[in-house]
Amino acid sequence: MALIKSIGYTIEINTNNYKSISAFVTKNKFSSYFILCDENTMHCCLAKLISNCPKLNTAQIIEIESGEASKSIEISLHIWQTLLENNADKNSLLINLGGGVVSDLGGFCASTFKRGIKFITIPTSLLAMADASVGGKTGIDFGGFKNTVGTFAQPEAVFVNPDFLSTLPKKHFYNGLAEIFKIALVCDKKFWMQLKSGSIETNLNAIIYNSILLKNKIVKKDPFDNNIRKILNFGHSIGHAIESILLETSDELLHGEAILIGMFIESHIAYQKKLLSKTELNEIVSTLKRVFDSKPINAINATSLLDALVHDKKNTKNKFLFSLPNSIGTCKINVDVKETHLKKGLDFYNNLA
Amino acid sequence: MALIKSIGYTIEINTNNYKSISAFVTKNKFSSYFILCDENTMHCCLAKLISNCPKLNTAQIIEIESGEASKSIEISLHIWQTLLENNADKNSLLINLGGGVVSDLGGFCASTFKRGIKFITIPTSLLAMADASVGGKTGIDFGGFKNTVGTFAQPEAVFVNPDFLSTLPKKHFYNGLAEIFKIALVCDKKFWMQLKSGSIETNLNAIIYNSILLKNKIVKKDPFDNNIRKILNFGHSIGHAIESILLETSDELLHGEAILIGMFIESHIAYQKKLLSKTELNEIVSTLKRVFDSKPINAINATSLLDALVHDKKNTKNKFLFSLPNSIGTCKINVDVKETHLKKGLDFYNNLA
Repeated sequence: MALIKSIGYTIEINTNNYKSISAFVTKNKFSSYFILCDENTMHCCLAKLISNCPKLNTAQIIEIESGEASKSIEISLHIWQTLLENNADKNSLLINLGGGVVSDLGGFCASTFKRGIKFITIPTSLLAMADASVGGKTGIDFGGFKNTVGTFAQPEAVFVNPDFLSTLPKKHFYNGLAEIFKIALVCDKKFWMQLKSGSIETNLNAIIYNSILLKNKIVKKDPFDNNIRKILNFGHSIGHAIESILLETSDELLHGEAILIGMFIESHIAYQKKLLSKTELNEIVSTLKRVFDSKPINAINATSLLDALVHDKKNTKNKFLFSLPNSIGTCKINVDVKETHLKKGLDFYNNLA
Repeated sequence: MALIKSIGYTIEINTNNYKSISAFVTKNKFSSYFILCDENTMHCCLAKLISNCPKLNTAQIIEIESGEASKSIEISLHIWQTLLENNADKNSLLINLGGGVVSDLGGFCASTFKRGIKFITIPTSLLAMADASVGGKTGIDFGGFKNTVGTFAQPEAVFVNPDFLSTLPKKHFYNGLAEIFKIALVCDKKFWMQLKSGSIETNLNAIIYNSILLKNKIVKKDPFDNNIRKILNFGHSIGHAIESILLETSDELLHGEAILIGMFIESHIAYQKKLLSKTELNEIVSTLKRVFDSKPINAINATSLLDALVHDKKNTKNKFLFSLPNSIGTCKINVDVKETHLKKGLDFYNNLA
């Protein structure tokens, strides 16, 4: 078992975490329990959780459909209504049992219901374990853009159990792995070397631990994303723009897949900006190609990408400000990126084999 | 001019505050401006504000209808959409120009758009000046209850100009006065004596200043309403329940009117609980009757009141926890109130002449 202290709460990494969850709900006297899950965690995790934590027998279950489409105002209204109808109060606990969609959405609803009720997160995907469950960002999509509406809100605790990953589809495993490679690239060359050369699956627990540790360290220094935390946005300017383009289409792209595309394009922009050498760019691109096997989307349209970038939270008026690797293992924030850089980066991606 | 320091921002009380607002928007380099107003502030205040602050010439105006009905998810969606369409970013400023509805709604939308953009408040009603603009509570109504969804969020600054009150209808003046009497009752006997015996209208600027000062002192000690801040809830358990009952009807009752009813009923409960003597109860009731002239509602139904109380944020499951005056000028929080106390208090109110 490993414990990581975050902003007012603890992240516990433990392959047998039911005991800890049970102790947590017993120790804290909550007035009622709510569990937010999707059809997958309903099927794979819920029964085990409840049978191991008898206090949760009375919990009200709120089931949503898996997938980004659930991060909506309509589903938020449904969750608020369920909390209201079941008399949730400031001593109630909402348990987010799921991946990034569940924790983003559940965190948003909990942090705004009656100006904030308590919540904990039990991440069940690699993405949620290594990334989404740490840092207090919550949000829903609105107006065709990702996370347009949201809050910064910290959970009471996060319980990470890597054993949940045994039932995770391969595609979703790589979804989380993209964020792990990203964090290595922006802040820890040693970790990057380890990921590049070692066996990922055999060292998974240590990799998850290290990823959380690195992210938590950054988040604690800058909880509201005004400064150093922006290094975590590497791959996300392009990545979010691509997700926004696809948000209202039937094309499904996981967050990590969009970030992977973002890392290819933004690494090339970093090379154009002379932050990465040709050798470093090649090292990044060849490693990502080898580990992630194929390009998530074959070719991306420049006009829609530029249009989507304008609405990104990270940009200020008429300026694209990117976070780009400044040699492998460090990162420069607020790099002014021009349309020509973007177009060249996009060409580079579109022409990748 | 008077300045009161709050949590990371300043409240400025100044009968000529345009200069300060202009200096504020010039000093801080915002990327764009948005002004939220209702038809009244649009008519009475907007032109003056803009002509005195040339930087606001380019501001996007968002007009809502005055009244509690605007504190809704539908209007929030409209505000978020307008922010999105006009490329609001994290360096944009939303100016809440209006009473409590505008500041509650505008604060909520600003604090959740892109996880929080900057906002300032220019309160134009006595209620907003003396109460709503201080303390960082934002919110909208949902599911038939007041402020079901909201956040704690602090503005960048609050600019209070008592001259705005010259155009305020009498009814709205008393609306704010109720909160001023409340704060005196729960934390400052001297202030209560002054309000009881002095001329309110001649001393208005000093009364507003004192009211903000008292509220700010409490809020700074307990920003998230977990402890001492609860004394401000005197009159509000009953008051909010009455507002919730009327929320989806055509009966219009201002917030201060509901709080006035709450103070009558809850003072009687404090008397039943032996927190107020008979003499003190009489002093409170006769003063409120004299100053506020008439009962806002003639008789209240016990069943609907109890039902609405269950959903109050301030209560935990199966327990009504009230904040009640503990002799005039101090207050006891988390007082366990039973149904019989409520019914007796209600009878007392219904039988008041």
